[in-house]
Amino acid sequence: MTARDRTMVNAYVPGASTLPAASAALIERRRAALGPAYRLFYQEPLHVVRGEDVWLTDADGVRYLDAYNNVVSVGHGHPHVVGAIAAQAASLCTHTRYLNGPVVDYAERLLATMPTALSHLMYTCTGSEANDLALRIAFDATGAEGVIVTDNAYHGTTHLVASLSPSLGAGVPRGPGVRTVPAPIHGDAARFAADVEGAIADLARAGIRPCALLLDTLCTSDGVAADPAGFLVPAVGAIRAAGGLFIADEVQPGFGRTGAGLWGFSRHGVVPDVVTLGKPMGNGYPVAGVVLQPRLVEAFGAKARYFNTFGGNTVAVAAAGAVLDVIEGQGLIDNAARVGAVFAQALAASPGLGPVRSAGLMIGVDVLDGEGRPDGARAARLVNDLRRAGVLISASGATGHVLKIRPPLTFGLGHVDYFMDRLGRVLAAR
Amino acid sequence: MTARDRTMVNAYVPGASTLPAASAALIERRRAALGPAYRLFYQEPLHVVRGEDVWLTDADGVRYLDAYNNVVSVGHGHPHVVGAIAAQAASLCTHTRYLNGPVVDYAERLLATMPTALSHLMYTCTGSEANDLALRIAFDATGAEGVIVTDNAYHGTTHLVASLSPSLGAGVPRGPGVRTVPAPIHGDAARFAADVEGAIADLARAGIRPCALLLDTLCTSDGVAADPAGFLVPAVGAIRAAGGLFIADEVQPGFGRTGAGLWGFSRHGVVPDVVTLGKPMGNGYPVAGVVLQPRLVEAFGAKARYFNTFGGNTVAVAAAGAVLDVIEGQGLIDNAARVGAVFAQALAASPGLGPVRSAGLMIGVDVLDGEGRPDGARAARLVNDLRRAGVLISASGATGHVLKIRPPLTFGLGHVDYFMDRLGRVLAAR
Repeated sequence: MTARDRTMVNAYVPGASTLPAASAALIERRRAALGPAYRLFYQEPLHVVRGEDVWLTDADGVRYLDAYNNVVSVGHGHPHVVGAIAAQAASLCTHTRYLNGPVVDYAERLLATMPTALSHLMYTCTGSEANDLALRIAFDATGAEGVIVTDNAYHGTTHLVASLSPSLGAGVPRGPGVRTVPAPIHGDAARFAADVEGAIADLARAGIRPCALLLDTLCTSDGVAADPAGFLVPAVGAIRAAGGLFIADEVQPGFGRTGAGLWGFSRHGVVPDVVTLGKPMGNGYPVAGVVLQPRLVEAFGAKARYFNTFGGNTVAVAAAGAVLDVIEGQGLIDNAARVGAVFAQALAASPGLGPVRSAGLMIGVDVLDGEGRPDGARAARLVNDLRRAGVLISASGATGHVLKIRPPLTFGLGHVDYFMDRLGRVLAAR
Repeated sequence: MTARDRTMVNAYVPGASTLPAASAALIERRRAALGPAYRLFYQEPLHVVRGEDVWLTDADGVRYLDAYNNVVSVGHGHPHVVGAIAAQAASLCTHTRYLNGPVVDYAERLLATMPTALSHLMYTCTGSEANDLALRIAFDATGAEGVIVTDNAYHGTTHLVASLSPSLGAGVPRGPGVRTVPAPIHGDAARFAADVEGAIADLARAGIRPCALLLDTLCTSDGVAADPAGFLVPAVGAIRAAGGLFIADEVQPGFGRTGAGLWGFSRHGVVPDVVTLGKPMGNGYPVAGVVLQPRLVEAFGAKARYFNTFGGNTVAVAAAGAVLDVIEGQGLIDNAARVGAVFAQALAASPGLGPVRSAGLMIGVDVLDGEGRPDGARAARLVNDLRRAGVLISASGATGHVLKIRPPLTFGLGHVDYFMDRLGRVLAAR
C-alpha cells in the first residue's frame, strides 16, 4: 500500500511533521472525535478562523492568499450573499412541498442561462447528491447500467458516486458497470472518443449497455484539461451513438470559473443531456442541482417522487440568487477570463515549472523533474512551501504532479502579482 | 397503478381541485421549471412567505398553526439560530480540510450526549447522505450486503437509500440485499424480533449475509411506533446474533422530539452500532451526521478518506451548536414531554378518532371507518380540512390512515388548545 492509496494528494500525514503544540492538540482532539477517515490539507495543517474575499486568516493572525477555494466562488464572506442568507433565514426557511415564488424564480433564472433543451432544474443539497440523482434518472431513462468516467475522476461521496470516483483510491469499491478512460488532458479529441468507444465495447463484452459518459468538463482531478475547446465533441457523439447520455459535471467548472460563460460545456459547443451543479452555487451555503432535458424525467416523475428536505430550501435559493447577482454585478466571468489569462501567462513564463493548462481561473501547472517527467513529490514540496509563504493552492492528477490553482473569481491582478512574488521566492529557495 | 403509487400521502394531485388563479399560475410555472418528480402538500397547496416560531403565513397574510414541521425543530426563524448563522457566514465559511476549533467542539458536545461507545461523529450535509454513509461503512465493516428495513420505511433519496425506502413506492427499484419486515406499530417485541429473524433466514436462502437492521426508532413513516419503550431489544439482539449491525435512524426522533432525552434509541435502552442524524440538527440549515462505534470505521478510514464539502462546514456547525443551546436553554425536551402528553391525551379523548401512539411531540393518530378499519381517504379529508381551518399536519403509514402530528418543539399548551378547537370544528362539520 502506497502513501497515495492510504491518503490523498496534499494530505497531512500524522507524525510526518513537527507541529506547534496548539495545532497538535487540536488535531488529536479532532482525530478522537471525527475518527480516522478525515484528512487535513498540508504538512502543517492550517487552523483558520476568518475569511475575507481572497484572504484567510489563521489562529495566530497570519493572512494567507487563498488561491484554491472554489466554494466561496465570489469571495469569502461576500456581504451581498451573507445578507441574503441572514435575511431569508430570519424570514422563512422551508422546503419544496410548499409553494414559494423565489424557488421557481431562481430555477427560471438559472435555466435561462442554459441551452433551451435543458429545461428542468431539480434541487439537491450537495454536488454528490446531484450526481447521484442524475444517475438515478439516467439509469431509469436508459434502462442501462454502464457508466464511463475518467481515470482519476471525482464525482462525490455517496455509495453510488464514490464507486464512480477512482481518485478516492483502490480502497473504494468500483461498481461492475463502471469503466474508466484516460482524461483528454492535452485535448486529443480523436483519442478520447476512441477510448470512450473502447469502454463501450468492453461494457458490451460484459453484457452491459452504456448509460452515460459522466465528465467534469475540465477534468479537474485528472490534472485540468482545457484546450482546444471542442475536444469533447467526438466523445459525446460516441456515447450517444451507443444509446448513452452525456452528463456534464459542472461542480468545478460551473458558475463562471472558465471565464467563457457560466458553463464549462458551452466552451465545447455541446449540449449535455444532464448537467450537475454544486460547490460554488451558494458561495458556501449548501445548495446544488441537476439540470436536465425533460424527456429523461417524464417516466421517472410519473412513477416516483423526488424530495430533498434541504435541497432548494428558501434560504439556499436566496443564497444562490445572490451569487448570480454578484457574478453579474461584479462582472466576474470577464474578470476570470482577464485575470486568468494574465495569471496563466505568468505561470507559463515562470522558470522551473512545466506546461500550464487553464480556462479562466481554473489553472493546472505540471511539475516535472530534471528529465521532464511528472514529479508529484516536488509538487507537494511546492504546495507546502507556498503555504508557509502565505499562499494557498493544492495539487491534482493521479500522480499529484499538477499544481491546482483555483481562487475565488474576485481574484485580481494585484493578487496575481502577490502570488507570483511568493512563488518566485519559493522556487528560488529550492 | 393506484393513486398511492403515482404520488404520495397528502400530495396535491394536479387537476383534482379548483385553485385560486395566483396559485394555479405559480404551480404551472413550477411544473415547467422543476419537472414532474416534484410533489406539493395538500389539495390546495400552501403558498408560504413567512415563518415565526410555530406559525406560517401565506401570500394572502393568513396564518397557519404549524403542527408538522420538524426541520425547524426549535421554531421558525429562531433568533439565536439565525444570529449564529449570520455571524458565522460573515466571518468564515469553510470545510473540514482546514483545522477549526468549533467543528471539533461541536462533535465533542454532541458525542457527550450519547453512550460512551458511540465516540465518532462524521459530518454530512443531509440525512440521506448520513444513511448512505452509514451503510457504506457498515458494508465495509461487515463485508455483508443484507439490509432489513420496515415495510413503509423512508431513509432518504440517494440511489442506495432510496432502494431501502419502500415508502417511495413500487416505482423505485429495491436492491437485491433488501428485506422488509412489518413495523412494530403496537410494540410487539417478540413478533418484531421473529420477523427480523425471518428476514435474516430469507437473506441466507439467497446467499446474502445480514449487514444491518436500519430503523427509525419511532417507525414514523410506518405510522408511529412508540410504546412500550424497550420493544426494540429482542430485534436488536437478533440482528447482532446474526453478525449484523443495528443502525438507528434518528433523523425523525432525534434532538429531543420524544421528550425522553435527546435520542429515540435511549428510550429503548439499546446502544446502536451506528446512529444517523438529520433534519432538526441545524433548524433548517443543512447539516447532518453519522455517529458510530470506532471499530466500524478503522478499516474504512485506513484505506479510504471521507470528505463532504458542505458537511460540517463552519456555518453548519454554528447553526447546530445554536440548536443545542436552544434545546437546553428553553428546556425543550421537558416541553416536548409535558405538552406532548397533554396533546396526546386530548387527541385520545377526541370523539371520532382512533388510537393515539406518541412519544413527546411525535404523535400518530389512527383514522378509522365506521367498522374500525383504517381509512386513508378520511384521514386525507381531515388533513385538508384542517389546512383550510388554519392548522397544518399530514398523514403517514402505508395506507395513509395515520394523522402525523409533529410540531416544532416550542409548541405550547395554548397551541394544543388552538389545535383541538380547530380539530373539533373540522370533526363536527363532517
